[in-house]
Amino acid sequence: MKSYYFDNAATSWPKPETVIQAMEFYFRRVGGNPGRAGHRKAIEAGRIVLKTRDLLAVLFNVKDPARIVFTKNATEALNTALYGVLKAGDHAVTTSMEHNSVMRPLNDLARLGLDLSVAEADRTGEVTVDMIRKCIKDKTRLVAVTHASNVTGAINEIEKIGLLCKQNNILFLVDAAQTAGVVGLDVERMSIDLLAFSGHKGLLGPQGTGGLFIRDEKLLKPLTRGGTGSLSYSEEQPEFLPDCYESGTLNVIGLAGLGEGIRFILDRGIDRIMAHERRLLEIFLNETDGDGRFVLYGARNALKQTGVLSLNIRGFAASKVGEVLDRKYGIMTRIGLHCAPRAHKTLGTFPDGTVRFSWGFFTGEKDILKAVRFLKEIAENMKHQS
Amino acid sequence: MKSYYFDNAATSWPKPETVIQAMEFYFRRVGGNPGRAGHRKAIEAGRIVLKTRDLLAVLFNVKDPARIVFTKNATEALNTALYGVLKAGDHAVTTSMEHNSVMRPLNDLARLGLDLSVAEADRTGEVTVDMIRKCIKDKTRLVAVTHASNVTGAINEIEKIGLLCKQNNILFLVDAAQTAGVVGLDVERMSIDLLAFSGHKGLLGPQGTGGLFIRDEKLLKPLTRGGTGSLSYSEEQPEFLPDCYESGTLNVIGLAGLGEGIRFILDRGIDRIMAHERRLLEIFLNETDGDGRFVLYGARNALKQTGVLSLNIRGFAASKVGEVLDRKYGIMTRIGLHCAPRAHKTLGTFPDGTVRFSWGFFTGEKDILKAVRFLKEIAENMKHQS
Repeated sequence: MKSYYFDNAATSWPKPETVIQAMEFYFRRVGGNPGRAGHRKAIEAGRIVLKTRDLLAVLFNVKDPARIVFTKNATEALNTALYGVLKAGDHAVTTSMEHNSVMRPLNDLARLGLDLSVAEADRTGEVTVDMIRKCIKDKTRLVAVTHASNVTGAINEIEKIGLLCKQNNILFLVDAAQTAGVVGLDVERMSIDLLAFSGHKGLLGPQGTGGLFIRDEKLLKPLTRGGTGSLSYSEEQPEFLPDCYESGTLNVIGLAGLGEGIRFILDRGIDRIMAHERRLLEIFLNETDGDGRFVLYGARNALKQTGVLSLNIRGFAASKVGEVLDRKYGIMTRIGLHCAPRAHKTLGTFPDGTVRFSWGFFTGEKDILKAVRFLKEIAENMKHQS
Repeated sequence: MKSYYFDNAATSWPKPETVIQAMEFYFRRVGGNPGRAGHRKAIEAGRIVLKTRDLLAVLFNVKDPARIVFTKNATEALNTALYGVLKAGDHAVTTSMEHNSVMRPLNDLARLGLDLSVAEADRTGEVTVDMIRKCIKDKTRLVAVTHASNVTGAINEIEKIGLLCKQNNILFLVDAAQTAGVVGLDVERMSIDLLAFSGHKGLLGPQGTGGLFIRDEKLLKPLTRGGTGSLSYSEEQPEFLPDCYESGTLNVIGLAGLGEGIRFILDRGIDRIMAHERRLLEIFLNETDGDGRFVLYGARNALKQTGVLSLNIRGFAASKVGEVLDRKYGIMTRIGLHCAPRAHKTLGTFPDGTVRFSWGFFTGEKDILKAVRFLKEIAENMKHQS
């Protein structure tokens, strides 16, 4: 059976061929551990890591690439930022649309004495600067907002929220897990202090990669300490970037692949990638929005949404629809709560959740039309069965 | 120029061909995110992760594979154990032969109020149970010891130290970064409570992999929190294994490769692998020990040492020797302090360090003989130049 992958918001697939080629080249020809020795393999491995850092700096408009540190995933980057900055007595603001990678650390910090405010998004899942402004207090230390919801794809007013934070001398943490590589990001224009990103979603790299942009390392204590290859004579963690936040051996083979994923994006241009995802969303919306058999969530506006669409077939559980889509039609979606329970409460879809379709650069218009056709078939069949 | 890789203690190279094949298979044919959806790709990805966990459980004699959690490297595993267990007022014991992945977190914890004792190894770098016993206090909570030194290869009395800890109700953390895959490990026989390991050294997997065996998760708070695919309805971190310690997307492509690395080891048997590394050490020792031009460090005893040999050419800086080895002879070693400054203080080689040779299953006797011949040439040439 032909299958259709609509779970790119969890991890993108397929990836560019050049990604695996770079990994294979590293595997067969290089193999060294960067910063751990002065021999040719270690130097070549270091060069690969540096190159990937440079490419990310271009993509995010980061002037000093050393300000980008590599983590194993976006979750580690978010934890590094949250636990690194916040302490008991601080006040932090987040939103009801955050992923558990933000909510779980923040709830843990709240138990330890953090004062936490959660801005409620509206029923479409959008977060505006006004919602954040209302939550700010004199002692607010950090605002953490997702660039786009992993449930609805809603793109938030990051630039306006960044300006608000800057004017109030508040650190601004952006979760770009859903946007890096598919929506334009500019840490200067958006006044972002901390940018957490995943390497294996929009950036088209392999799993095991991600990172954090850090504007001012003096404000952030590291989450882990250990060998960095630098200051080998010292039993204290180096305080400089990127070493302070990169303890232990890096995932060099993964970073070799990630570099090629980013190069793929830079070669095509983020505008072209975003335009492609938008066109697919428009087709999906045209075919389903207004059709009484479906309930669609989010802004339902291709200009304010990533390549993600959450929906339900009216009267039927998401889990049942998702199962039939996979088993009978080979359509792979993610059903349920998407590790974002509060987002589903905001949308009114808790605890059953939604069927989430998420696509990417390699998804075609025909794939979307197939998905829509199958969805309509299921809606008809289920109606007759019930 | 033909080159010779003697930096396997930093990262092993080459790896078995099956490792890259498994990674390529995952890349091209699978691609899903385990635990994040119910579709075929997510299920197949989950099966790969489970298989690797099962293979590790066989290798380390862990009865319940869920007690092995995956991390990005051994350093993250060690940090998870140390920060997860220890708090201000506790007493912990470690040794002067530890890597900075143990010393740097412990020194940080000491600043926060941990009472820390460092057992001094003897000049050969060996740690005995008696050295640990002398440091134990009534309130000792944890003993952290490296299974084998990354500087000298000295294998410590882990089984005896484990028994001592067990008898005194002290948690026993073993750093197996240098031994997993090349020296037998048995968490039951060795009474190990927490076993940190690297995936890209003796286990022959790719970088970006590692893990921690956890005997009792109730004693250990997680280092990071986030999406786990489980309890998606809850904003609190799950308390069960392995999810509690595996937040965010796992490095599935890396774990696919790691599984094949472990399978390679299990197919051949750890005894055969250890015997091979020992034979190479005997050859190296036969050719150099007692030769007045060289200073050798460690036990210089193939029965008590991994495939690591640290040495210096008498009267010449390690950095100079390492540079000539690489540039003129294509011999890749790691010179300096190996992220273990206190170990070098113990050996009397601080701050200049040593030239460290480290080999693996793919190193041949001829490679060792070549290395020795080049070393002797360098010693002669340097003598004449000086």
